Amino acid sequence: MGGHLSGGADAAGPADFEAQARERLDDPTWAWLAGGAADEISLRGNRAAWEALALWPHVLRPLQQAHTRVELLGRTLAAPLLLAPVAYQRLLHPLGEAGSALAAATQGAGVVLSAMSSIALEDVARHVLAEPARGPLWFQLYLSGDRGFDLALVQRAEAAGFEALVLTVDAPVQGVRERERRAGFRLPDGVAAVHFAGAPVPPPPDPAAMCAGLLARAPTWDDVAWLRAQTRLPLLLKGVLRADDARQAAALGAAGLVISNHGGRTLDTVTPTATALPRIADALGGALPLLVDGGIRRGTDVLKAAALGARAVLLGRAPLFALAAAGPQGVAQSLRRLRDELEIALALTGCASLADASRALLEPAQ
Amino acid sequence: MGGHLSGGADAAGPADFEAQARERLDDPTWAWLAGGAADEISLRGNRAAWEALALWPHVLRPLQQAHTRVELLGRTLAAPLLLAPVAYQRLLHPLGEAGSALAAATQGAGVVLSAMSSIALEDVARHVLAEPARGPLWFQLYLSGDRGFDLALVQRAEAAGFEALVLTVDAPVQGVRERERRAGFRLPDGVAAVHFAGAPVPPPPDPAAMCAGLLARAPTWDDVAWLRAQTRLPLLLKGVLRADDARQAAALGAAGLVISNHGGRTLDTVTPTATALPRIADALGGALPLLVDGGIRRGTDVLKAAALGARAVLLGRAPLFALAAAGPQGVAQSLRRLRDELEIALALTGCASLADASRALLEPAQ
Amino acid sequence: MGGHLSGGADAAGPADFEAQARERLDDPTWAWLAGGAADEISLRGNRAAWEALALWPHVLRPLQQAHTRVELLGRTLAAPLLLAPVAYQRLLHPLGEAGSALAAATQGAGVVLSAMSSIALEDVARHVLAEPARGPLWFQLYLSGDRGFDLALVQRAEAAGFEALVLTVDAPVQGVRERERRAGFRLPDGVAAVHFAGAPVPPPPDPAAMCAGLLARAPTWDDVAWLRAQTRLPLLLKGVLRADDARQAAALGAAGLVISNHGGRTLDTVTPTATALPRIADALGGALPLLVDGGIRRGTDVLKAAALGARAVLLGRAPLFALAAAGPQGVAQSLRRLRDELEIALALTGCASLADASRALLEPAQ
Amino acid sequence: MGGHLSGGADAAGPADFEAQARERLDDPTWAWLAGGAADEISLRGNRAAWEALALWPHVLRPLQQAHTRVELLGRTLAAPLLLAPVAYQRLLHPLGEAGSALAAATQGAGVVLSAMSSIALEDVARHVLAEPARGPLWFQLYLSGDRGFDLALVQRAEAAGFEALVLTVDAPVQGVRERERRAGFRLPDGVAAVHFAGAPVPPPPDPAAMCAGLLARAPTWDDVAWLRAQTRLPLLLKGVLRADDARQAAALGAAGLVISNHGGRTLDTVTPTATALPRIADALGGALPLLVDGGIRRGTDVLKAAALGARAVLLGRAPLFALAAAGPQGVAQSLRRLRDELEIALALTGCASLADASRALLEPAQ
Repeated sequence: MGGHLSGGADAAGPADFEAQARERLDDPTWAWLAGGAADEISLRGNRAAWEALALWPHVLRPLQQAHTRVELLGRTLAAPLLLAPVAYQRLLHPLGEAGSALAAATQGAGVVLSAMSSIALEDVARHVLAEPARGPLWFQLYLSGDRGFDLALVQRAEAAGFEALVLTVDAPVQGVRERERRAGFRLPDGVAAVHFAGAPVPPPPDPAAMCAGLLARAPTWDDVAWLRAQTRLPLLLKGVLRADDARQAAALGAAGLVISNHGGRTLDTVTPTATALPRIADALGGALPLLVDGGIRRGTDVLKAAALGARAVLLGRAPLFALAAAGPQGVAQSLRRLRDELEIALALTGCASLADASRALLEPAQ
Repeated sequence: MGGHLSGGADAAGPADFEAQARERLDDPTWAWLAGGAADEISLRGNRAAWEALALWPHVLRPLQQAHTRVELLGRTLAAPLLLAPVAYQRLLHPLGEAGSALAAATQGAGVVLSAMSSIALEDVARHVLAEPARGPLWFQLYLSGDRGFDLALVQRAEAAGFEALVLTVDAPVQGVRERERRAGFRLPDGVAAVHFAGAPVPPPPDPAAMCAGLLARAPTWDDVAWLRAQTRLPLLLKGVLRADDARQAAALGAAGLVISNHGGRTLDTVTPTATALPRIADALGGALPLLVDGGIRRGTDVLKAAALGARAVLLGRAPLFALAAAGPQGVAQSLRRLRDELEIALALTGCASLADASRALLEPAQ
Repeated sequence: MGGHLSGGADAAGPADFEAQARERLDDPTWAWLAGGAADEISLRGNRAAWEALALWPHVLRPLQQAHTRVELLGRTLAAPLLLAPVAYQRLLHPLGEAGSALAAATQGAGVVLSAMSSIALEDVARHVLAEPARGPLWFQLYLSGDRGFDLALVQRAEAAGFEALVLTVDAPVQGVRERERRAGFRLPDGVAAVHFAGAPVPPPPDPAAMCAGLLARAPTWDDVAWLRAQTRLPLLLKGVLRADDARQAAALGAAGLVISNHGGRTLDTVTPTATALPRIADALGGALPLLVDGGIRRGTDVLKAAALGARAVLLGRAPLFALAAAGPQGVAQSLRRLRDELEIALALTGCASLADASRALLEPAQ
Repeated sequence: MGGHLSGGADAAGPADFEAQARERLDDPTWAWLAGGAADEISLRGNRAAWEALALWPHVLRPLQQAHTRVELLGRTLAAPLLLAPVAYQRLLHPLGEAGSALAAATQGAGVVLSAMSSIALEDVARHVLAEPARGPLWFQLYLSGDRGFDLALVQRAEAAGFEALVLTVDAPVQGVRERERRAGFRLPDGVAAVHFAGAPVPPPPDPAAMCAGLLARAPTWDDVAWLRAQTRLPLLLKGVLRADDARQAAALGAAGLVISNHGGRTLDTVTPTATALPRIADALGGALPLLVDGGIRRGTDVLKAAALGARAVLLGRAPLFALAAAGPQGVAQSLRRLRDELEIALALTGCASLADASRALLEPAQ
């Protein structure tokens, strides 16, 4: 790989953007982007779980009307693809989140902007909302323990035109990011979580307390209920892996769930998302739209996610490898290729739409 | 490997022809021949599935009358071996399909000529039909969406003496052939799908439509029924992997099925053919002769295919590695060796014929 | 790895201490420390079994009161961590067991001193008992076949302030320590099992007898009963893997069990401890506190051990890699990091304490 | 490995003799000795199957009377070890079978001499019978299709003092010995199957017949019955893998069975012997003594074989690596070490004899 690739335009597949990103980024930034928690067992496990699912294609089905459209929270998406919320994208390209989000919007893909964005949410929203082909525009956030600050951020997102909130619930503390630590990753000058510029200073760490006292501010189900009452926007929870938690989220009025293990970046050896997804789908019986992320690289992965009960997928590292390798054009290309692959996967399994992708595509009856 | 091999005549096993072909072919042609779809999980999975099946040999059975013959569509084959339909064989040797087909015929193996042959079907047929020891001669085709053109091609095949038609049903669109794309594979001047020289020009691709509009012409079960009514030849379907599709094919009057995932070249992560075969055999209960391809390299693979319900196997890459390495003589040698291995496998498992190879050879009762 | 690590203080994770220890130790000592029995299948298997267990985290649980404390034989430990009994630690650092034990005590971790210590038990006890934050202080022993000698050693341990005895029952003879043998490991001058300086000379080996006659002195259940009657200290058995043996130990009045395969150092291909632990937990139903060792490197391993029924874990190689790499400070750092990881693992799985870690964390109900 | 090994006397484990043999033998002879059939899946599978079985040791059992003795066809063996019949041992050492057999006899191990011995059976017998500590002395043979010749060979073996016959039933034709073929293995001048010097010339191969006509002379159950009637010696069958065949052998009066796949040298992908053994043990219920070979390298393998129902094991490559590396002294050393390992394995699993090794050692009840 490498020599014949003069740029993103020559990438033959996702591995090419990844290899180019590896070459262009310095070691610490690469460790931050590509690494996972501890021994990276979940990082690899996410990918392996999608790969291990075998497809059983149908043949000779009518495909003339085939399409990749899905409905999601009242909008129609051209394809079930959204950018996952990833922090600090200016580490990868000067345009940062503005670049990746605009590229996604031109492809009809959705955008979930990270609260830790290195570009102000209003700037990202302006770019996305101006794009007629755009998909949904959502804002991801954490609960910081300071309700006033959190509420102000939510109101900024509402005012800027974001259409849903995605509350991340799987990271009350940071994971063991050993690859980053070994590579000496630190945020360079000029890249910051701009929404937190005026944030209240948290109490100093308490070395005697568990997790240095951070858990005193860890959110609970009560905080979710509070947040839901503060906003007119649909509220999704991101980071749910268990059926019991999924039922509780539904009971509390969540508008959807993102089945996620934070891309293998928080707790290592957590179950792969492809394993958790069908259990939650079975538990909820369609009561809520489910999204999933973690290791999705191929159109066949998207099809399998749909077969297991997901309405759409979130894409983290794949488009960001492309952003680092080839800028916003690379992001657009990677999303376009993923959609092309999804079209091919639908056609080659005889599915006229994602609604045809049921569990039987993976576990045929005898 | 390598140094001591002065040519195909010195090949000790299938890996030798493969290594020699790798050396003789340029990178793009090698990528085209040896590669599969996307991450090549199905390519490897096909092979791994045959290898993972364990044989439980019988001993001391009477073998004096042992033989490798099978009956197939009214003909007796010396051994259950056919060349799979592979396009553009002049990429590998100047004689192309004429060379491989004649070599197969001298060994009593069957020939399934690809519609995308780089040699005219009449030329191939003339060589094969002149060989007294020959096996069956079949013609593979796609439905192009232009019934007039398709029918004319069928009639050419009938007139030339082909004895059955094999309709490929697993490739309404092309797969994600990433290794080819990365290597920059393109058909060189002088090699073409000669049967399509005067084909009607398809409509230009429509970038806005799914699969660029190609699905408008994707064949359905109705087209199969139409084709069956147009020809006096038996019609087999190639690319079936599901029991429900197999039942539908039987109901429509198919003369046989080829259990195939296109050699792992269309959709990646599709189930291995060795996994699909016994399910279809169980579903059909012997109603149709079944053939299988995908990763078959050894006599034990052929025996296992028979034990799982296949009447015969199709061979793609293995004889073509030999064609590239050592020409038609290599093809003959590779088929002869495969038959030798099958004879040994029958003898060493105590099977006097392939009819003795039942599921009990793989899953003995306690 | 390596270049950027100027010492233990820079270790980003357990693999760093291991790599540094490898560099600092000579080949025979490394073989002794890192190696296992025969082909080291159990050595790798222990580690692989912890890694293979998948966690299913809860979210949004109240964590304000979260802690890592456990009760063990009447004491409260800050975290469920103890140093496993490992011989001859002066091979690794001049301070030997005194250094590792004191470092553990400063971190609140328990200490199980090996009978084969290279530092006198009184010296180790004095260091540990002086540390106010210390955890439990236990003494490990073998039954040598000479009851008088064994009893004297027990009485020394009692007198020195040890709080429990851990009788190792899985090593009546030494294992096949092939890596050591290949590397030519021998105890250097100046390092010895100091408690055995005045030990009675065992009978000479008898080459005609099985295991050279060593089994004549192998302990039995009767010897356990005898030992228990000789001491006021609680008696734990270390090296139990079977539920039937665990029941027998409980019936004989054992105060606890250490589920162990001797770190893969005695018999190769023995079941991993993570596989044995839940079976014993099920068999005993909480009648005895269970501890476990073997391949524990990560906070998630400790959490999984608790979920499978362990009250605490013993740590062998991990802190000793740190001792060799960075001295007692390294031991303290490695224990502190393991506790940090455990805190993170509890927080990220929604467990407010180890009592919340049940089997459901690994095998959720649907 | 390597540099520090000045000879067999320094071998720390079986891998050392193997490495030394690799260095001392030329490539073709190494391919003949170490190789297997085709892709060597069964060769590796035999080994992997023993390794994959997990032991669940007992502790604190009384071991004072422990021993490794077994009864076999009326003799008491010091340990359940026999040399497997391997041809042409003068390829490995000038003393050939005489050297390996004498070395085995000095260790109390049994000897199964190959019909294809490169040393006359009388010479081997004379050496073995003169050794007071010797184990059983058996003769392996094939049925050649010429009853007169076979009977004469049997009578020579009887006259020379062999105590049982082992009829190999899993090789009516030779396997696909691809590694040998690739390496160009041929018998050198001066090494021959000496018992076949005056053998009747077989009919010339018939290229038109299956297996070149060799199957006309393949033995059947009737031939076994004939052979049994010709000799006063107990007759064992070697190469049985199926329960149904085992029952038929018992019904025909076989004195024992060797569960074997010919060391992975005949048919590739055949089930591992460790998988076949317990099924046959279950089917026969102790009616016949069972022996097993294939990939046995460690004392734990021997213990597992006993736990699965074998009375003794046959050792092929392991002592022959030692013969090539260090001559008869190496063979003795390798057998002694295997017995040492078996003693250790018994002691460390709490078995006072091999009779204590039941299935419960591998699959404990809850």
